[in-house]
Amino acid sequence: MIKPRTAPGTLELLPTEQIAFQRMLDVIRSGYERFGFLPIETPAYELTDVLLTKTGGETERQVYFVQSTGSLDKAAAQEDPGLPELALRFDLTVPLARYVAEHEHRLTFPFRRYQMQRVYRGERPQRGRYREFYQCDIDIIGKDGLSPRHDAECPAVIHTIFTDLDIGAFTIQLNNRKLMRGFFEDLGITEAQQQVTVLREIDKIDKRGPEAVRDTLTGEAYGLAADVVQTLLDLVGLRSTSHDDALAILDRVLAASAGSPVLATGVAELREVLTVLRDLGVPESDYCLNLSIARGLDYYTGTVYETTLDEHPEIGSVCSGGRYDDLAGQYTKSRLPGVGMSIGLTRLFWQLREAGLVGTAESTVQVLVPQLDEAYLPQCLALATDLRQGGINTEVVLDGGKLGKQLKYADRAGIRFVAIVGEQEVAADTVTIKDLRRQDQFTVAREEAVRSLRVELAQPLGLPHDGSDED
Amino acid sequence: MIKPRTAPGTLELLPTEQIAFQRMLDVIRSGYERFGFLPIETPAYELTDVLLTKTGGETERQVYFVQSTGSLDKAAAQEDPGLPELALRFDLTVPLARYVAEHEHRLTFPFRRYQMQRVYRGERPQRGRYREFYQCDIDIIGKDGLSPRHDAECPAVIHTIFTDLDIGAFTIQLNNRKLMRGFFEDLGITEAQQQVTVLREIDKIDKRGPEAVRDTLTGEAYGLAADVVQTLLDLVGLRSTSHDDALAILDRVLAASAGSPVLATGVAELREVLTVLRDLGVPESDYCLNLSIARGLDYYTGTVYETTLDEHPEIGSVCSGGRYDDLAGQYTKSRLPGVGMSIGLTRLFWQLREAGLVGTAESTVQVLVPQLDEAYLPQCLALATDLRQGGINTEVVLDGGKLGKQLKYADRAGIRFVAIVGEQEVAADTVTIKDLRRQDQFTVAREEAVRSLRVELAQPLGLPHDGSDED
Repeated sequence: MIKPRTAPGTLELLPTEQIAFQRMLDVIRSGYERFGFLPIETPAYELTDVLLTKTGGETERQVYFVQSTGSLDKAAAQEDPGLPELALRFDLTVPLARYVAEHEHRLTFPFRRYQMQRVYRGERPQRGRYREFYQCDIDIIGKDGLSPRHDAECPAVIHTIFTDLDIGAFTIQLNNRKLMRGFFEDLGITEAQQQVTVLREIDKIDKRGPEAVRDTLTGEAYGLAADVVQTLLDLVGLRSTSHDDALAILDRVLAASAGSPVLATGVAELREVLTVLRDLGVPESDYCLNLSIARGLDYYTGTVYETTLDEHPEIGSVCSGGRYDDLAGQYTKSRLPGVGMSIGLTRLFWQLREAGLVGTAESTVQVLVPQLDEAYLPQCLALATDLRQGGINTEVVLDGGKLGKQLKYADRAGIRFVAIVGEQEVAADTVTIKDLRRQDQFTVAREEAVRSLRVELAQPLGLPHDGSDED
Repeated sequence: MIKPRTAPGTLELLPTEQIAFQRMLDVIRSGYERFGFLPIETPAYELTDVLLTKTGGETERQVYFVQSTGSLDKAAAQEDPGLPELALRFDLTVPLARYVAEHEHRLTFPFRRYQMQRVYRGERPQRGRYREFYQCDIDIIGKDGLSPRHDAECPAVIHTIFTDLDIGAFTIQLNNRKLMRGFFEDLGITEAQQQVTVLREIDKIDKRGPEAVRDTLTGEAYGLAADVVQTLLDLVGLRSTSHDDALAILDRVLAASAGSPVLATGVAELREVLTVLRDLGVPESDYCLNLSIARGLDYYTGTVYETTLDEHPEIGSVCSGGRYDDLAGQYTKSRLPGVGMSIGLTRLFWQLREAGLVGTAESTVQVLVPQLDEAYLPQCLALATDLRQGGINTEVVLDGGKLGKQLKYADRAGIRFVAIVGEQEVAADTVTIKDLRRQDQFTVAREEAVRSLRVELAQPLGLPHDGSDED
């Protein structure tokens, strides 16, 4: 006998949790589709040479390789077999780049796609960090160019989704890499690599605090002057409190600039993003300018985003992304600029569950038809068929047992309604409907059962029952 | 520059095809949920010792193993590294067995689950055979026992799904392994292994024809008497033409029996399945008894199913399954009998596409808001937000360009409606709506735009337009 167990670093859910997870996936998908993004899926594995063109050693060490038994045997027979031919994707961005480059001539640009699939990273397992996890990405890919207006669409759809997820207030935070780059140049930090490493240090402000970051930047490794560091920390301390405040901050930053054209471009892009966000009706309380956001990845070149839950800042960013100049330079000569955001749903779900924000979900099963007496099974089955044809998710108890036990099962499973067909009901051609949430019960004519349950299911639970169907 | 390409044996779709595929997934999920099945997902990979407990060499040769770089290095350093620690699932049945055994005490039995995920097999790539493909499974798992009534639920939900998929007439074919086993015993073929191999030969009737199978069975390898083979072929030639005919065939088989109790049990189980199928309202034209169905797998012990498309018999079975005595004997001492069916969606989709049955799907995008003049972009964005809040999937053109080009894009992408906000519309506070399918156009008051488009979208395309909103 083998002990049944999942591999380390994977999250497997019981059905009630899976339903809650699936509802989040559905909300995300619905939001992405509402904004006109098209679905794609890519294979879980890519050819290793295609997947690992761009990445350095850090990523490669986290990659999972895939081998059939045949190639294992071949590899064992060789002295230096090299890397296996196939590898599991570690994000959805490299597969997107490969997809767009491969199918470039059959896609319309700007290409707006969403993709919600699992990715794989050989990370050290720890609480809330998984080796297999869902990413739910949107990206808009232009050909040769892409208006900064698109940079407003990503936070707008994310706003819709986080509103619909109903997990409390959140703030989408915006910054722009060009603004930061210009500011650096104004301060005499002109070398790109130094800007990147300084940005990385600044990125740690939330974790290390400004004092520690100041010490690092004025210390031996960077050797920046104290006033330069102060100017920098003043900038990254800026957070807008309203839409107009954001615009005012941008004016001040531009006015204080020594005239860097790249800073001016960054400011202009952020202004356009803010304008389109407002025109799209995104409430100003739900977004802000936060000039400390740098994003760890080096390939962002314009707008960058992070999203935090106002009541759970400890969770950190739950949805991030940004603008990049060139999606697929490793696969095609076409210049494909893009902008995107990503929700790491497995981690978010785990965090929400830890924070007590994932409630016990109602079951996908809406009605249970219990079995009181085998003699009435045909009537129960016919009722179930009518309910199902009426679009109601229905389970019939086929094995029988005591009614109390069947009701208890429905209650524990989160099934809200029980539709009883027993001796009395068959004689009177009725159905008795129990609402386990409201602890309410009523009897309707058999032919009214579907309509009646559809009305009940369409009513939000908070509303009082109108009693017209009462027994 | 690396040539962007997918790994061999994978199916990757363009967005329009992906939408069609996703609609099929949605229909299947909706059907499974309508019948009260609960969702689960399992990790793509399992621990190798957990995954490969039961399987023989045939399966192992098709398994994909998963290794991080670290474990590759370790494996290379050893003389005989053995199998890697992780392996990709090759079906959803072994993960289900592991899941049920692992979470046994937190599940309610009968446990009714659906699972729609990709599985991996290192098969030789060939047309329509994929190494990565979706399986969409339902299973009902009992503890200690499970009424044969459940054996009717699987074909009933499959009936609903194939009706909703709208890919033409289909027939769900039923048989029972006990009936077959009893029949064999009556004929003096009492050894289980011989029954299995003879069943395998019989399973080839559709491919090889009855004559070739007869020759094999009377030949050296089996040495069965000609009259025994004839009786057997007469049996497996039986197909019912109606519900009553199916019951009559069962009566005849039982009457002709030499008294095998196992045959009688098989007949009784099939009778119960047929009764429940009728009580569930499944039309008798959509199922039949087909005593040639054996299913290749040895672990089925009762009811077995295959599903064929009436107009495309060449496709073979598109949904199969059956009853098994013991799901998870390798993981638990609990006896867990079950019954299930599986749709191999990737292969089915490919076959339907080859047969011309996958049409050009309407886009998930329902309305395109083109950009005629940058000056009216705020109005376009506000309209898009209203439409989206009204549940309508809407894309706004942010980059501009000629209207003709934007309309052409909508048409090619399968977007049905275009909602135009230009100079005239802004002045009159209206929206002009083009229906690209009906080649129709009308103008509505701005505040009526959402309601009007919702009405249009709710109407099936076949109905004539009522003209009340005409310009």
